[in-house]
Amino acid sequence: MYTLYSDQRSGNSYKVRLALARLGIPYRLVEIDILRGESRTPEFLAKNPNGQIPLLEVAPGRYLAESNAILWYVAGGTTLAPEDRIARAEALQWMFFEQHSLEPNIGAAYFWLCLIKGGRELQRHALEDWLENGYRALGVMEMHLAKHRFFVGEHSTIADIALYAYTHLAEQCDFDLGRYPAVRAWLERVAGEPGHVPMEWQPEPLALAE
Amino acid sequence: MYTLYSDQRSGNSYKVRLALARLGIPYRLVEIDILRGESRTPEFLAKNPNGQIPLLEVAPGRYLAESNAILWYVAGGTTLAPEDRIARAEALQWMFFEQHSLEPNIGAAYFWLCLIKGGRELQRHALEDWLENGYRALGVMEMHLAKHRFFVGEHSTIADIALYAYTHLAEQCDFDLGRYPAVRAWLERVAGEPGHVPMEWQPEPLALAE
Repeated sequence: MYTLYSDQRSGNSYKVRLALARLGIPYRLVEIDILRGESRTPEFLAKNPNGQIPLLEVAPGRYLAESNAILWYVAGGTTLAPEDRIARAEALQWMFFEQHSLEPNIGAAYFWLCLIKGGRELQRHALEDWLENGYRALGVMEMHLAKHRFFVGEHSTIADIALYAYTHLAEQCDFDLGRYPAVRAWLERVAGEPGHVPMEWQPEPLALAE
Repeated sequence: MYTLYSDQRSGNSYKVRLALARLGIPYRLVEIDILRGESRTPEFLAKNPNGQIPLLEVAPGRYLAESNAILWYVAGGTTLAPEDRIARAEALQWMFFEQHSLEPNIGAAYFWLCLIKGGRELQRHALEDWLENGYRALGVMEMHLAKHRFFVGEHSTIADIALYAYTHLAEQCDFDLGRYPAVRAWLERVAGEPGHVPMEWQPEPLALAE
């Protein structure tokens, strides 16, 4: 059984919890409080030298980092993975877009405005850039979603899950989605998929003793 | 035959040219001058709404963006793709790391210090962050390469090509690799692989008339 190291408040962690819930795959959850430095302890750095969550133990002692690489791994061969070679590459295209153009902006705004007390004051100089670049990314998504129900093919895939995580938090951190009706409709479509769980959801404790 | 839209000075474009050269795959090259706005014309935006190179035409009228998604696509089934499921996910892990932790720092420093006249003055406030975060990424790479010849498995893969592109430019843009001996040895190993081409290399013109 997988063990997932996750912080409840992390959009990147939510991606993995959402994918596993959608797929009905049981796993053991280890909550890591990144704000208390629990991803920077010697024990955790031995598992992931980059000191980040989410982290998935895919085999005994073998750990996979980077939320979108984890999504790719757990979805392999399931309905969440696109079928043909071009579609699989297109899913990766959107997932790299997410990590390069969306998460560094909406994710950063979410972190500093919603999770860090006084963060808005501390990051006042950066917020304008996050908003400008985040809106630019949302514009690219809007253009695609104006013509397509999901990001790749006719049903939802890991590309949608990757992009959903921070997009669904955008309005909590100063972004106004009013000008993005196709994005809003897509958010509702993803949330309506069978097996969907909200960010607050956690699985039942499976193995408290290790 | 593939058509690749690329800017000669872009590390992200170099990744794709290097992978295609390593694999001996012929392609038609269309040079796009991003500094003259050629990736923001209506014609180009119709191919890639995100306005970025590299861009690969993978089938007539079907375009794939994001350098690492393109690497994944062209390397499928070749010696540059890792073999088993965990190793493939590990390659993606390093490729997402590259786009999230390395390219936004070393790539940004390279762009502003090496390509833009007066860029150093314009970005003086940002350079310190790029150096700090870029060194942090190089530190993670150093720890891995101190124990491994390549990033995934025993031979070089698309993960090495993705990370090579901007790492090999680091010393041109204020980074000192003196404290990263394993990274420097790995750069030499990658450059010594059969089929390797330097960033300046371009393929013979294949089809000047379209």
